[in-house]
Amino acid sequence: MIFEEKTLSSERIYEGIILNLRRDKVTVRNGTSYREIVEHSGGAVAAAINDEGKIVLVKQFRKPVDCVVLEAPAGKIEKGEDPAETIYRELKEETGYTADSMEFMTAIKTSVGYTDETLYIYLAKGLVPGETDFDENEAIEVVEYDFEDAYSMVVKGEIRDAKTVVAILLAKNHLQNQ
Amino acid sequence: MIFEEKTLSSERIYEGIILNLRRDKVTVRNGTSYREIVEHSGGAVAAAINDEGKIVLVKQFRKPVDCVVLEAPAGKIEKGEDPAETIYRELKEETGYTADSMEFMTAIKTSVGYTDETLYIYLAKGLVPGETDFDENEAIEVVEYDFEDAYSMVVKGEIRDAKTVVAILLAKNHLQNQ
Repeated sequence: MIFEEKTLSSERIYEGIILNLRRDKVTVRNGTSYREIVEHSGGAVAAAINDEGKIVLVKQFRKPVDCVVLEAPAGKIEKGEDPAETIYRELKEETGYTADSMEFMTAIKTSVGYTDETLYIYLAKGLVPGETDFDENEAIEVVEYDFEDAYSMVVKGEIRDAKTVVAILLAKNHLQNQ
Repeated sequence: MIFEEKTLSSERIYEGIILNLRRDKVTVRNGTSYREIVEHSGGAVAAAINDEGKIVLVKQFRKPVDCVVLEAPAGKIEKGEDPAETIYRELKEETGYTADSMEFMTAIKTSVGYTDETLYIYLAKGLVPGETDFDENEAIEVVEYDFEDAYSMVVKGEIRDAKTVVAILLAKNHLQNQ
């Protein structure tokens, strides 16, 4: 039987724009301990693959890792929004594409040791090009790779963003079985 | 050319046990903005597969998601430690196993929008059983699954912890090519 930690008290440390931080005092097997917890509203992600078998990715500078990151299109779930709405909106905003087919593949917990963040991962197909609609603070470059090349980049460790790694590896499985 | 955000100032919000939080004021294309950044020392993770083709996983209660999570053995990188040392230590502590072979597969960035956390993911083989050595606050159950069953659980969305999803999906690729 695995011990379940009960919350004895909770301290709000920070309330921010994209995250909050709290510190919970919890029961553990031999007494009490503290858990530092980042609250995040979660996001939606797409492995977006066009009719030529190319995957649509985006490049953007990410301050937390201080470099340009190659990523699957993704965005934060707005309050009250269904993740499927989020991914249609973000795919359109970031890449200009709308998708005829949006298949839910999985939902991942990004780092269960300290955050409640969940990312919903979709396979988008039947892509129809259109205008992009970047957020004013976003600075995004859209790039397309042959899907098999992107898959190789994941296996070689050249694509390292977790949501993008999962999106591409699971898309490989789904495409093989279709 | 992708715009690179420069840090104008940085505010330390919280210094904790497993994470710190800071808020950077940065240059963006049309002025300035703020970035909320969780600092984390990173971790190491193993897809540990024994000679019978079973993967060794652990179950533990995780307060941030308030439930028991099925995960690959993993742990936080201690100051000055090489991730390869981390994973030998954590695999032994959590499961009792030592590994004859530890192959680096990739390093993932868990959530580039707000954290610098990197997880180093290994394929551990040639497992030799031994005594576990749990941290006093850990409460861990060791479980073994046929690797193909664990792979199916990832594809069906039954295993959702990001590091575990990546470890299993990449192990599948590596095992197929060996």
